[in-house]
Amino acid sequence: MRWFLFGSFLFLFSGLVEAQTDSTYISKISDEIFRHSTAYSNLHTLTKTIGPRLSGSPQTYTAEKWGQDALKQAGADRVYLQKAMIPHWVRGGRDQAALISGKNRQTLAVIALGNSVSTKAGGITAPMILIHDFDELERKKDEIKGKIVFYNHPFNVDFVWTFRAYEEAVLYRVFGASRAAKYGAVGVLIRSMSSSTDNFPHTGAMIYIDSFPKIPILAVGLQDADKLAAAASTPKDLQIFMSTNAHALADTVGYNVIGEWKGSDFPDQFITVGGHLDSWDPAEGAQDDGAGCVQSIEVLNALKSIGYKPRHTIRVVLFTDEENGGRGASAYSSEAKQKNEKHIFALESDAGGFTPREFSFKGNEAKLDLIRPYLPLFSKYGVNSFKLNGAGADVDPLTDSVGALAAELIPDSQRYFDYHHAGNDVFENVNKRELELGAINMTALIYLVDKYGL
Amino acid sequence: MRWFLFGSFLFLFSGLVEAQTDSTYISKISDEIFRHSTAYSNLHTLTKTIGPRLSGSPQTYTAEKWGQDALKQAGADRVYLQKAMIPHWVRGGRDQAALISGKNRQTLAVIALGNSVSTKAGGITAPMILIHDFDELERKKDEIKGKIVFYNHPFNVDFVWTFRAYEEAVLYRVFGASRAAKYGAVGVLIRSMSSSTDNFPHTGAMIYIDSFPKIPILAVGLQDADKLAAAASTPKDLQIFMSTNAHALADTVGYNVIGEWKGSDFPDQFITVGGHLDSWDPAEGAQDDGAGCVQSIEVLNALKSIGYKPRHTIRVVLFTDEENGGRGASAYSSEAKQKNEKHIFALESDAGGFTPREFSFKGNEAKLDLIRPYLPLFSKYGVNSFKLNGAGADVDPLTDSVGALAAELIPDSQRYFDYHHAGNDVFENVNKRELELGAINMTALIYLVDKYGL
Repeated sequence: MRWFLFGSFLFLFSGLVEAQTDSTYISKISDEIFRHSTAYSNLHTLTKTIGPRLSGSPQTYTAEKWGQDALKQAGADRVYLQKAMIPHWVRGGRDQAALISGKNRQTLAVIALGNSVSTKAGGITAPMILIHDFDELERKKDEIKGKIVFYNHPFNVDFVWTFRAYEEAVLYRVFGASRAAKYGAVGVLIRSMSSSTDNFPHTGAMIYIDSFPKIPILAVGLQDADKLAAAASTPKDLQIFMSTNAHALADTVGYNVIGEWKGSDFPDQFITVGGHLDSWDPAEGAQDDGAGCVQSIEVLNALKSIGYKPRHTIRVVLFTDEENGGRGASAYSSEAKQKNEKHIFALESDAGGFTPREFSFKGNEAKLDLIRPYLPLFSKYGVNSFKLNGAGADVDPLTDSVGALAAELIPDSQRYFDYHHAGNDVFENVNKRELELGAINMTALIYLVDKYGL
Repeated sequence: MRWFLFGSFLFLFSGLVEAQTDSTYISKISDEIFRHSTAYSNLHTLTKTIGPRLSGSPQTYTAEKWGQDALKQAGADRVYLQKAMIPHWVRGGRDQAALISGKNRQTLAVIALGNSVSTKAGGITAPMILIHDFDELERKKDEIKGKIVFYNHPFNVDFVWTFRAYEEAVLYRVFGASRAAKYGAVGVLIRSMSSSTDNFPHTGAMIYIDSFPKIPILAVGLQDADKLAAAASTPKDLQIFMSTNAHALADTVGYNVIGEWKGSDFPDQFITVGGHLDSWDPAEGAQDDGAGCVQSIEVLNALKSIGYKPRHTIRVVLFTDEENGGRGASAYSSEAKQKNEKHIFALESDAGGFTPREFSFKGNEAKLDLIRPYLPLFSKYGVNSFKLNGAGADVDPLTDSVGALAAELIPDSQRYFDYHHAGNDVFENVNKRELELGAINMTALIYLVDKYGL
């Protein structure tokens, strides 16, 4: 702990005047954003006039156009596009499933997972087998053949930090199909990755392991998942009907949308702040990640509005294809490496526009030690902790490629998985002040890093 | 700062084993509440089957019945009622207002404030005068006579802690009518105490100063308040129509609902935890303060469920009449004083069922110093600060009457005034996990205070 106390005391004594100045300046940032932020109205436009923005969808391109306009409006010196080849998976219509028990047929709220293959035309019907986890799958491997596996792995409610429950449960979404196909399953249903109280099914990316047949996989809403589990506990003969026309097309072109604000002292050193512009298709991608996009644009907008002059070049990046490929992140970090760019810091907001709690970092710890003394400046605005616990998926590659310190805004996580990749991830479920408070903390951090360097 | 470090170090060293035990025990509390809490289902019943619970309304009594049943269900040894004479103000029908400009008539979203008198039957119509603050009222005192004053005092968005904006703005709600009546106004409209993006009008208590005529007062939704302000900026002759049948009846009988769980070591020493059972009438009183009631009941329920044996007597109190009288709080603290009861601690939740941030305290600072070392146990659950900054309105009087340390759970405040006393304070706007996380922190604090005393 010594270094920490040492750093803090240095900050408290030699940096006292600076700290007061910074505190005042951050207060100015806060006032500017709470009074005049464009984040909420930008989010309204992005969600309500463009809507879902799945990679390769027509909205991918209208969103790119919107992003360029918004960055110009916020005052970027230069707005440009960075090409990436992105996947083009399409849902192809309405996904359907039903539980069939004798003559009873109960429709289920379902959605195909991203990258799933289709069923045959008209759907498939097969006996259901209830599986709780991969251990049970292995124990029952001889009973899987010809069946539809229903993984009812619960989202562990015990974790205060809900992303830990997600990390556990998401394995069933990502690998569940291939692991079941290995033993002859013909289709898969999974319990949605959520602990919400509603019945929205939650989609998200899955991956096929090449050595096994590709079988279709759908997520089920939680209430219907409970019904399936209850039905399976009786000794009836249960069948599942499932149908999806999901399929992958050839990769297509997408773009990161970048707005640059040139630094006065170190124009060739970069600070990146961003979110991802793509979203899943059942809703508007408001929390995931319209929020991160409009907050990042607001960093530029607010600093411009209060007359700040950056020392380093600040780039606002609206990444393409975070959800089902990460190709935008790859393109950005690859080009940075190829051009030998010096990136000192990169921040993402991709955990929702909820009230802020922490910043999490990844990369060079010596750089993080330079940031730690700033923590007291944030407590008034809700951020109480800096942790070395990973960075946003789009800025993470910059740690390896160009040695940047990467980070992520960590908002409160209680509501995130109520909306994640589901039909209720809409504008109305983003709170204006929470969104703005996130932008305030992000702007303050970018300001401090730019002012003092790393 | 010395005492703080001293306390912390004592805690860190001599208390290390205890701290681990407590940490484990609080983890058990957390698991119990996240897995099996009755808070959310109790809130559903209270809001959806009983609904608004304004003092003296029929629901006052159905809610008291519900509270007794819920406390018995949670395992109270003894459930009883404590009488208080409560005000009985009634809305008397639908409140109405309109902006009249020549032949145009624009209906406004309004709600009469609690304690407002009625207009004459059929309503009143009078010229409008726009007033921003009391200073302007004084400057324009000669222009007030015969008019309807529209106070358009904004809810200051700058404060991260939104209750500060409320403290500033609420003066217009409480005293606006009498101050305008002093100069001959015939009615008052006020901008709602909120910075929400919708048009729900927000009610709340107002007070007449006896030396001035009692004139009716209505709150206006924010969008309509903006329209009124815009209309007032043009030189047209503007009139306001306003109508309400609000009126006070004779005081009636209400009850605090109390559930007691007898302590083994100090049965005559009390720890109180509660919320208020009454609510305003336009909605369900879900955040204000159904949340605090069901969280308090959950403290008892959770500790019982995990087999805890209290050393002190724990009382869960569902207070009557917080909103327009505070008579329940008076009755409780008066009886405590009269009976010379020893109250060591009293905690309220009345700032909404949002994600928890802090505990605030009032009273004996030496007692608070005994609590401060517990803070690290809470950070995992979202509470990062203990502040000496006031206690819940219902437990506050216990500091003076019987010398208790009083406290309040402080959740994140960003969304509170979106719903406060408005038509959208409904069950659907309470998040299950946020509500439960509040209950977890409350239960942990009650556990620690009971275990170690004060």
